[in-house]
Amino acid sequence: MTRYQRLATLLAQRIEQGLYQAGERLPSVRSLSAEHGVSISTVQQAYSLLEEKQLIAAQPRSGYFVARQGVTPPLPPITRPVQRPVEITQWDAVMDLLTARLDADVLPLGSGTPNIDASTLKPLWKIIGRLAHQQDPRLLNYDNLYGVPELREQIARLMIDSGCRTTADDIVVTTGCHEALSVSIRATCQPGDIIAVESPAFHGTMQILRGFGIRVIEIPTDPQSGISLEALELAFEQWPIKAVVVVPNCNNPLGFIMPAARKQALLTLAQRFDAAIIEDDVYGELAFDYPRPITIKSLDIDGRVLLCSSFSKTLAPGLRVGWVAPGRYFDRVLHMKYISTGSTATQTQMAVAAFIRQGHYQPHLRRMRHYYQRNLETFTCRVRHHFPCGICVTRPQGGFLIWVELPEPFDAYRLNENLRRSGIQIAVGSLFSAAGKYRNCLRLSYAHAFTDKTERALAILGTALKKAVLSCSSLVERSQHQEREEGRASLKEND
Amino acid sequence: MTRYQRLATLLAQRIEQGLYQAGERLPSVRSLSAEHGVSISTVQQAYSLLEEKQLIAAQPRSGYFVARQGVTPPLPPITRPVQRPVEITQWDAVMDLLTARLDADVLPLGSGTPNIDASTLKPLWKIIGRLAHQQDPRLLNYDNLYGVPELREQIARLMIDSGCRTTADDIVVTTGCHEALSVSIRATCQPGDIIAVESPAFHGTMQILRGFGIRVIEIPTDPQSGISLEALELAFEQWPIKAVVVVPNCNNPLGFIMPAARKQALLTLAQRFDAAIIEDDVYGELAFDYPRPITIKSLDIDGRVLLCSSFSKTLAPGLRVGWVAPGRYFDRVLHMKYISTGSTATQTQMAVAAFIRQGHYQPHLRRMRHYYQRNLETFTCRVRHHFPCGICVTRPQGGFLIWVELPEPFDAYRLNENLRRSGIQIAVGSLFSAAGKYRNCLRLSYAHAFTDKTERALAILGTALKKAVLSCSSLVERSQHQEREEGRASLKEND
Repeated sequence: MTRYQRLATLLAQRIEQGLYQAGERLPSVRSLSAEHGVSISTVQQAYSLLEEKQLIAAQPRSGYFVARQGVTPPLPPITRPVQRPVEITQWDAVMDLLTARLDADVLPLGSGTPNIDASTLKPLWKIIGRLAHQQDPRLLNYDNLYGVPELREQIARLMIDSGCRTTADDIVVTTGCHEALSVSIRATCQPGDIIAVESPAFHGTMQILRGFGIRVIEIPTDPQSGISLEALELAFEQWPIKAVVVVPNCNNPLGFIMPAARKQALLTLAQRFDAAIIEDDVYGELAFDYPRPITIKSLDIDGRVLLCSSFSKTLAPGLRVGWVAPGRYFDRVLHMKYISTGSTATQTQMAVAAFIRQGHYQPHLRRMRHYYQRNLETFTCRVRHHFPCGICVTRPQGGFLIWVELPEPFDAYRLNENLRRSGIQIAVGSLFSAAGKYRNCLRLSYAHAFTDKTERALAILGTALKKAVLSCSSLVERSQHQEREEGRASLKEND
Repeated sequence: MTRYQRLATLLAQRIEQGLYQAGERLPSVRSLSAEHGVSISTVQQAYSLLEEKQLIAAQPRSGYFVARQGVTPPLPPITRPVQRPVEITQWDAVMDLLTARLDADVLPLGSGTPNIDASTLKPLWKIIGRLAHQQDPRLLNYDNLYGVPELREQIARLMIDSGCRTTADDIVVTTGCHEALSVSIRATCQPGDIIAVESPAFHGTMQILRGFGIRVIEIPTDPQSGISLEALELAFEQWPIKAVVVVPNCNNPLGFIMPAARKQALLTLAQRFDAAIIEDDVYGELAFDYPRPITIKSLDIDGRVLLCSSFSKTLAPGLRVGWVAPGRYFDRVLHMKYISTGSTATQTQMAVAAFIRQGHYQPHLRRMRHYYQRNLETFTCRVRHHFPCGICVTRPQGGFLIWVELPEPFDAYRLNENLRRSGIQIAVGSLFSAAGKYRNCLRLSYAHAFTDKTERALAILGTALKKAVLSCSSLVERSQHQEREEGRASLKEND
C-alpha cells in the first residue's frame, strides 16, 4: 500500500466513524500535509482517490467536502402525465427562461446553455480568424441548401460512433437542432395530427408542436430507462399517432440513457404502428461513459427515424449549426428546410468542419464529458447538503441537466418568482409538459463552474425547498385532517 | 465646348447617320486617340458621356458598342393570372435553380445571388477576423431571440431612410429574409387561409405558402406600377384574404418600384378589408435612384405591415442575417422565430453590426447601386443586340433581375433544359406563379460582371429565342390557319 493509499484509508475511516460529518468541509491539503508529514501531492492523490470512490467531492476554490452517502435522494418515480392529446401553452414561461440566460445579474441555474469557456474550444477562434483572412468567397455565398459538403462529411463520420452507417448525402445541415426538430416535425405531420412525446419533454419541442397546431400525447417516462413502451403501445392502440419524439441519450430533462434493447423495442413498436421516430440526440455525445451510446437511428432499417442533432451543446450554441439525417423523409425535410431559412449560414459551417477535420473535436468532447461529470459530482454533493429530505433527484448519465421533484402541492413557478429577487433562475417543471404538469418539479443545470455564487444559490434554493416541503407536508396533513373531519361530519349527518 | 465634348458630339452624329450600326463595336480608345490626335483620357471622357446618354454601352474587356436605341423591346403587358386560390407546386424546378447556383460549370443567369466581389465588402472580412481575435464569448452563445441589440439598433437606423420611425425594440433578427417571410406568413395565417400575391411573385414565397398549406390568389401586376389595386379589391370582395405579400421596391422578378401613392392606396385597401401586408423589401436599398424609395411600412399607422428584409442582397447571402419589423404581430412572430430556429447565429450578427457602425455600409451600397445600374445598361444593350423582335423585357428600377416575356406557346422550361447542355441556366417563369403560368417567360440576372462568357451565353440564348419566336409565330399562324380551315369545314357541314 502506497503512502497516499494509506492516507486515503485513514480519511475514509474517519468519515465512516463520523469524525467528518456528511456535507462538512475536510481539512485543507496544506494542513493535512503538515499533520501527517507527507507531501502536498500525496494528500492530493489521496483526495483524488476518495473522490473517485465518491466519498468526498471537490468544490473549486472551496476545498473538499464529505459526500452525503447516507442521504442520496431517491430517484423520481415513473411519471404519470395526462394520457390524452392536449394543446400546449406555457410560452410566457419559456420566454422568461430565454431572457434570463443572457441577464448578467441572474444566475441561470435553469438554462440549457453549455459551458463555452474550455481551452479546447480556442482553436475554433483561430479557424474563424484564418477563414476570414483567406477571404474565400464561398463563405459569403448561399450554401447548397443541403449544407456545405465538407461539414456533412465530418458529421457522417461522427455518426459512425453512434452506430450509424450514414453518408454525407443522407444529411441536411440546419440552423441548430431547433430547426432540425422543426423541419422533422413538419415533414412527418400535418396540423391536427397527434405526436407522442416523453413526459417530461424538452420545452422547445413542445413549443414547436404548439406552433404547428399538433396535438401531443405525453407518455409516462422512467427516469432511468426512458419512455414507457407499455404506455406507448396503449397510446398507439388508442390514437392515430403519426410520430414519436424522444431524447433517448442523456435525456433532457431526466438525464437517462435508454438501454439499447429498449431502443430496439421502441423502433419495433414504431414499425408495427407505422409511425416515424424523431430522435433528438443533441446531448448524446456528452454521455459520461465512453464509447458513447448508440442511437435508435443506428438500428433503423426502413428509414423511419429522423435523427436531429447539433453542435450547440458540444461546441457552442451561437454557431447555430445542427443537422438532420431524415431517412425516407429526406425530400420533405429538404423542402421544409428551404421554406424555413433558405439555407444555413456558410461561414460557421466551414469553421465547424475545419475544427473537426483538424482533430480538435474529440479532445474537446473528452474534456467536456469529464468536466460535466465532475461538475455533477460536486453539484450532487452540495444538493445533498442543502436540499431537504422528501425530494427526488435524477442521476444523469450525461449532459448537464438535473431534475428535482418535490411533493405534489409544491409550486415551482412561485418559487422561481421568489428566487428571481435573489438573482437566481430555475426552469419550472411545467414547461416540460403539454398539459402543464410538473409544477412541483424543476430543472437545474450544472454546466458552469461551481463557484461561491452557485453555492449561495443552492443554499438559498435549499432553504426555500425546506420551507416548501414543510408547508407541503403540513398542507398534506391538514388536508388529510380535513378529510377525516369531513368524513366524521358526513358520518354524523348520516346518523 | 471642351475637346471631349466635341469628340462625343462627332461620334453621336456618326451613330445617328448610321456610320456605326446599332449593336456594332465602336473603334478602340487607342485608335480614336490616334485618329483625332487627342489624348487617351479625352476619348475615354467622350465615351463616358455617350454612355451616360445611353447612346453606347461598355462591355468589360470587349470595348464599347452602339446601343440599339430604335429597338428597345416593349415592356410586358400587365399580367393575367388565374384569379382563384390555387395550390403551389414547382418544387423540383426551384431545387434545380438552387443547385445550379453553386455549379462552377454553369453560368447561373437565372439566379438571385448578388455580386460579392466588390472591394467595399472587404472590411467585413477584417471585422470577422478581429471579432475572432477578441474571443468575445458572446459570439459563441445564444443571442436573446430578438437578435443582438447592436444589430437591431443599426437596422432601426437604416430603416429611417425608407421613412420608418422604427426602434430597435420593434425588430426581430432572422436567419435571412427567408425566415422573416416564413415567420411573418405563419404569424398572420393558418393552414387553409388565403393570401394574395403579386403575379409573378418570388418563388421562395410561393414555396413557403405551399409548405404551410396556404392557398394563393395571384393578382395581375403591372411591370411599371405593381400589383393591380382594382383586381386586388375585387379579390378582397370575393375571398376572405388574410394577408397580401408584396415586393413593392425593386420587385422580384419585375423590377418596378411601386409609386408612393399606390403604396398608400394598397395600405388603405388592406385597412378596409382588415388584412395584413407582408412587405418584402430585400432589394429596396438597391434602387438606382437616391434617396431610396419609401416602404409601405413607413405609412403604416395601425401595425398591420410586417416588413421583411435582409443583408443577403446588399452584403452577402451566406451571412444569413435578415430581420422583420412585425408591427402588431410582434409576439406571434417572436414565437414563430423561436420554433423555427431557436435563435440566429450570433457572430454574423455582430459582424454586420460592426460593418454598419464603422461606416462601411453606405459606401458599399452606393457602389453596388451604381455597379448594378451600369451592368443593366450593358446587359440591356447586349440583350437588344442578340434577342429577337417580338419579345417584351422589363426595365428594372433597381436590384439585378430582368424579366423577359415571349409569345404564348413558348416553353421556357424546355429552353432551360436545352441551355443546360451549353452550361447556361435561366429561371423559368412558371416558378413565379402558383398556377404554373408564365411558362413563356424567364428571369435573368445581371448581378455579375459582364464577361465574354456572358456575351456568349446571351448569344446562345438569343439564337434559341429567335428560333422559338419563329416557331411560335408559325405555330400561331398554323393554329390560326387550322382554325380558319376548321371554321370553313364546320361552315360546310352546316351547309
